[in-house]
Amino acid sequence: MVIVMAPTATPDNIDTIVDLVATAGGEAYVTRGVSRTIIGLVGDVQQFETLDLRAMPGVSDVLRISAPYKLVSRENHPSRSMVSVRGVPIGGDNVTVIAGPCAVETPEQTLAAAQMARAAGAALLRGGAYKPRTSPYAFQGLGESGLKILADVREETGLPIVTEVVDPADVELVAGYADMLQIGTRNAQNFALLQAAGEAGRPVMLKRGMNATIEEWLMAAEYIAQRGNLDIVLCERGIRTFEKATRNTLDISAVPVAQNLSHLPVIVDPSHSGGKRDLVLPLSRAAIAVGADGIIVDVHPAPETALCDGPQALVGEDIEALADLAASLTALMGRTLTPAPEPVAAGV
Amino acid sequence: MVIVMAPTATPDNIDTIVDLVATAGGEAYVTRGVSRTIIGLVGDVQQFETLDLRAMPGVSDVLRISAPYKLVSRENHPSRSMVSVRGVPIGGDNVTVIAGPCAVETPEQTLAAAQMARAAGAALLRGGAYKPRTSPYAFQGLGESGLKILADVREETGLPIVTEVVDPADVELVAGYADMLQIGTRNAQNFALLQAAGEAGRPVMLKRGMNATIEEWLMAAEYIAQRGNLDIVLCERGIRTFEKATRNTLDISAVPVAQNLSHLPVIVDPSHSGGKRDLVLPLSRAAIAVGADGIIVDVHPAPETALCDGPQALVGEDIEALADLAASLTALMGRTLTPAPEPVAAGV
Amino acid sequence: MVIVMAPTATPDNIDTIVDLVATAGGEAYVTRGVSRTIIGLVGDVQQFETLDLRAMPGVSDVLRISAPYKLVSRENHPSRSMVSVRGVPIGGDNVTVIAGPCAVETPEQTLAAAQMARAAGAALLRGGAYKPRTSPYAFQGLGESGLKILADVREETGLPIVTEVVDPADVELVAGYADMLQIGTRNAQNFALLQAAGEAGRPVMLKRGMNATIEEWLMAAEYIAQRGNLDIVLCERGIRTFEKATRNTLDISAVPVAQNLSHLPVIVDPSHSGGKRDLVLPLSRAAIAVGADGIIVDVHPAPETALCDGPQALVGEDIEALADLAASLTALMGRTLTPAPEPVAAGV
Amino acid sequence: MVIVMAPTATPDNIDTIVDLVATAGGEAYVTRGVSRTIIGLVGDVQQFETLDLRAMPGVSDVLRISAPYKLVSRENHPSRSMVSVRGVPIGGDNVTVIAGPCAVETPEQTLAAAQMARAAGAALLRGGAYKPRTSPYAFQGLGESGLKILADVREETGLPIVTEVVDPADVELVAGYADMLQIGTRNAQNFALLQAAGEAGRPVMLKRGMNATIEEWLMAAEYIAQRGNLDIVLCERGIRTFEKATRNTLDISAVPVAQNLSHLPVIVDPSHSGGKRDLVLPLSRAAIAVGADGIIVDVHPAPETALCDGPQALVGEDIEALADLAASLTALMGRTLTPAPEPVAAGV
Repeated sequence: MVIVMAPTATPDNIDTIVDLVATAGGEAYVTRGVSRTIIGLVGDVQQFETLDLRAMPGVSDVLRISAPYKLVSRENHPSRSMVSVRGVPIGGDNVTVIAGPCAVETPEQTLAAAQMARAAGAALLRGGAYKPRTSPYAFQGLGESGLKILADVREETGLPIVTEVVDPADVELVAGYADMLQIGTRNAQNFALLQAAGEAGRPVMLKRGMNATIEEWLMAAEYIAQRGNLDIVLCERGIRTFEKATRNTLDISAVPVAQNLSHLPVIVDPSHSGGKRDLVLPLSRAAIAVGADGIIVDVHPAPETALCDGPQALVGEDIEALADLAASLTALMGRTLTPAPEPVAAGV
Repeated sequence: MVIVMAPTATPDNIDTIVDLVATAGGEAYVTRGVSRTIIGLVGDVQQFETLDLRAMPGVSDVLRISAPYKLVSRENHPSRSMVSVRGVPIGGDNVTVIAGPCAVETPEQTLAAAQMARAAGAALLRGGAYKPRTSPYAFQGLGESGLKILADVREETGLPIVTEVVDPADVELVAGYADMLQIGTRNAQNFALLQAAGEAGRPVMLKRGMNATIEEWLMAAEYIAQRGNLDIVLCERGIRTFEKATRNTLDISAVPVAQNLSHLPVIVDPSHSGGKRDLVLPLSRAAIAVGADGIIVDVHPAPETALCDGPQALVGEDIEALADLAASLTALMGRTLTPAPEPVAAGV
Repeated sequence: MVIVMAPTATPDNIDTIVDLVATAGGEAYVTRGVSRTIIGLVGDVQQFETLDLRAMPGVSDVLRISAPYKLVSRENHPSRSMVSVRGVPIGGDNVTVIAGPCAVETPEQTLAAAQMARAAGAALLRGGAYKPRTSPYAFQGLGESGLKILADVREETGLPIVTEVVDPADVELVAGYADMLQIGTRNAQNFALLQAAGEAGRPVMLKRGMNATIEEWLMAAEYIAQRGNLDIVLCERGIRTFEKATRNTLDISAVPVAQNLSHLPVIVDPSHSGGKRDLVLPLSRAAIAVGADGIIVDVHPAPETALCDGPQALVGEDIEALADLAASLTALMGRTLTPAPEPVAAGV
Repeated sequence: MVIVMAPTATPDNIDTIVDLVATAGGEAYVTRGVSRTIIGLVGDVQQFETLDLRAMPGVSDVLRISAPYKLVSRENHPSRSMVSVRGVPIGGDNVTVIAGPCAVETPEQTLAAAQMARAAGAALLRGGAYKPRTSPYAFQGLGESGLKILADVREETGLPIVTEVVDPADVELVAGYADMLQIGTRNAQNFALLQAAGEAGRPVMLKRGMNATIEEWLMAAEYIAQRGNLDIVLCERGIRTFEKATRNTLDISAVPVAQNLSHLPVIVDPSHSGGKRDLVLPLSRAAIAVGADGIIVDVHPAPETALCDGPQALVGEDIEALADLAASLTALMGRTLTPAPEPVAAGV
């Protein structure tokens, strides 16, 4: 059983709940998030129900949920959620395109990629300043100077920023620049990082672990939610299988399955799943047609010299094609393609 | 090196080639198919090239191909193939819907399912009379009496028949009734069966093995082709992974990858991959949007009493939705939805 | 419910059972094997129990088993089985080594490999005359002339023969030469072949499918058993995973798991699982130590010119090491290393 | 190219190298570890070779290595390493048993488990105070109070402590109590944690990621090594596959493969791979027989009430069996079973 406190709940309200639960022979785990506090109860559920907790001051909701994940489950929240990233919606009736370079390399490369992103129909800019790389000898990202480049490009293009964070110690710094934090596939069970992201006051895009079951993915989202942050977008990016013709195997079925189990928006990364430029457009079409709430795509002005994942970045001739397919398929699905904000919006 | 003989080549033409190859220090493996003979050469390719084999009587083509599969490779056959099933096309600009019950149970059930198939936009009827089942205690199909039911239903509805064969000894019998033979996922490396199907004089739908790499799938098709039958349609039906939320993991990327490597048409089975009714429509949309040449879908008039795979069969309310999505997505892709033949055609 | 008839049961005895079951509203599936008949009942088990079938003439056993596999389950057969291959035991307290070349190439190569096998401590000779190959252009085996070579080498060395069969149509021919039939990993769900092997009157070694769960493996064995042949040896040979450093991933845990679920002996193939010569001895040690009932190992007098799987064949210097480790580990496990029969025995 | 500086190298020595590399058109990445500094060179290797870096003051070694991992590769370090954990060796001729409870729950439970560990032949005590759990609602460990319990039990039993760390921010605290840090399977690509562990001044046991290839596992070890810590023990603990009869699939072949590629010791966790008590002893035998440098085993005085992974913990009757098999198999392999230190040693 989980108690979601109202944003206006006082410390006294919380203490009262904890005491009540103790008198009923249970234990209460209090998780204080940025905007709300969540109390998880362990013990005899039937006993708890006699307490009429829903009527207590400061209580917003009492969830009795059988799924192992509770706050992100659709069981208790049948309508699908919409997450707002500096005013840009993901979820609901919207289909949102996110695009940008895998890694921020220079101001010029990032600005050029952002302009490509906008031309491709994107409403959000992705770009990595902290890169988790399999090899310690590979380019690890520019760090804070990369974040500054992203902020400058946001200023110029109006596109809010999605960027990855890999170390709990960096979350506060990254959240100071980013409009949305990304948790990557290698950190899908890095619980300290998930919890830190849950407290950062920014929406989070949670990539599925390349070996994570859908249930484990939702449990990872629950770690973020439990810290008071329900502004989570799930991102399917391919799983690891025996097939080697593609970098990963895009689990396209995971989109409707996760949407049935959870109220969170679900988007698809066709670039990292296929790992090849010529698969990005077909997989983008599949993603929107299956019902995904958006896609996140690599673009790069000069993929042949990219420091990271050049072979999968879209280039000049693909950009218009992506914009076209996103527009036509979104319309066919009866949804709205999220427009990019105007540059002036970035100055707000 | 592979020599494809013309349909009009004589036994003497073939013997001449074999002798020539022997004089050049090589070995020639002759495979006599129904409509053409194929000669595989093993030995020193440069030596063979001095023979000018392409100019010999009866030779249609000489292929020097680096891929491990040769006849099905796109390397030497850049245009994509079209397969005709009793006049119904698969491949080219067409998107073809195949539908029907997983297993033929009774004449009434099969006819009702065929009418559902037609209403769903299908141009071909699927239905199994020989079922490969994991358990020897499960329903194994009606055998020849099932084939007769299918033939009667073809007569009545005009839909050509696609049906599975599981034993090389049954190929001739099944080919006597069927318009297209299906090789199932469990027989994806049953080479005796593949070879028998290659000689049956019927087009073949080859399902991907649930553990087959795309290369192994194409090699299996090569076994059929090598016996002189190039009327092969590849069918992606999901692979086995760690994820258990779906019956198999639909490898949607396999469609463009296989289409790039091979000239054969590639279709998708959204029913067996997802294993759940509510995934069939989303996965059908993804399949057509990714560029598949068709889909094969389970329908059943009474899934709750189906002897095989009821939980994944579409029912009443889904049929119109399938017809609608197939029509609208096919149009968006700039392709043509293959119309169903009229009943009178079945009497030919 | 499964009824196992006595070898002495008459056709009348069987008909009586079938009629009785029908009067109780059930259906009886009769499977006539070489040495016994098995009757599977489908219907209301409680109703069947009122029939007192165990007391009927000709009935040897009545099994009411909850596992999906019944005849091979340990549930009703707690003691572990021993299979005899022309007098050579596999199972029970024995550890049996099988060795030989992957493929029979020439009489000289086969004889040399058989002598290596004997020196390595093997009591049975393996060697393939029919090879299932991923590519139709790869060496497919010598066919019957390969079987004749094996029979000659048996005569000379005294080692009984284990050889693969890949086509149901070949089973009778192969069984005419072989002492044990092998079903390979690609045919693990080739049900027609399994059933034919079940009727061949020879013990069968059933390799696990490279993508088969342990349950599916036991179900495949049940197909053989259902045709009246319980002389089955299971062989773990590696499964397909994401790891590419080895040819397959040897699932060493499958040995104790299968031994707990089934009474059949379980052996290990360290050659095909690792795919590399230098892994064969370590994996052989692991197999005997985990409790396997034997190992099957590739040896070849000249691996560098082998037509099949040379890189994994043991050579000169490894042979004595294999004999030593088999002897010492078998002793440590409190078991007996099966001795090779003397050549004269082959003349029987 | 990687330059390993001597422990006695001065900052000036390092600066000189960096400047030299720059003049040759390259870049030098300096990683200062606790005991030594490592300089990675990126650029033209042939140019670097003209610099005669090996002769420069403060340089211990210059490695030119083709493997993607360098410091942990066996290419440049053919003899196998031995790691010392508070005087207890892992690697070399030793086979070392590590045992203890999955999670530290109470002083009494931990002490009882430590006594079981000692009786089972263990020389090191494992026990988790920080537990990474899939569910945020599961027991997450006692934290620092768990570390204190471990330290007290070390005092009483003499067994050095191996314990997991999950957050880079906790590394220093945990290293203050632990004799060896454990990085768990979910953190196998948590690079911030790997780097923090590389600087903690304690040996590290690095579990293989459940989806990590052997190459990725060694790359993760390289992250630790690059920070100056080569006291790393690799632990195979099962990978994720389609098979569900076991918790994970123990990749027993990974032991010899990793030992061939890397000089680091490799041990096996039979408890987490199988996930069932009755598989622990067979898999422990397989591990020692395949050549592992040790095993790490769950034991618990009362598994039925364990807060974590009770079903796989060995209990009373298994303890002596484990001690016996470890002794006899270690002897058979010609190795030495590492004895447990005496309690008084713990007071040092």
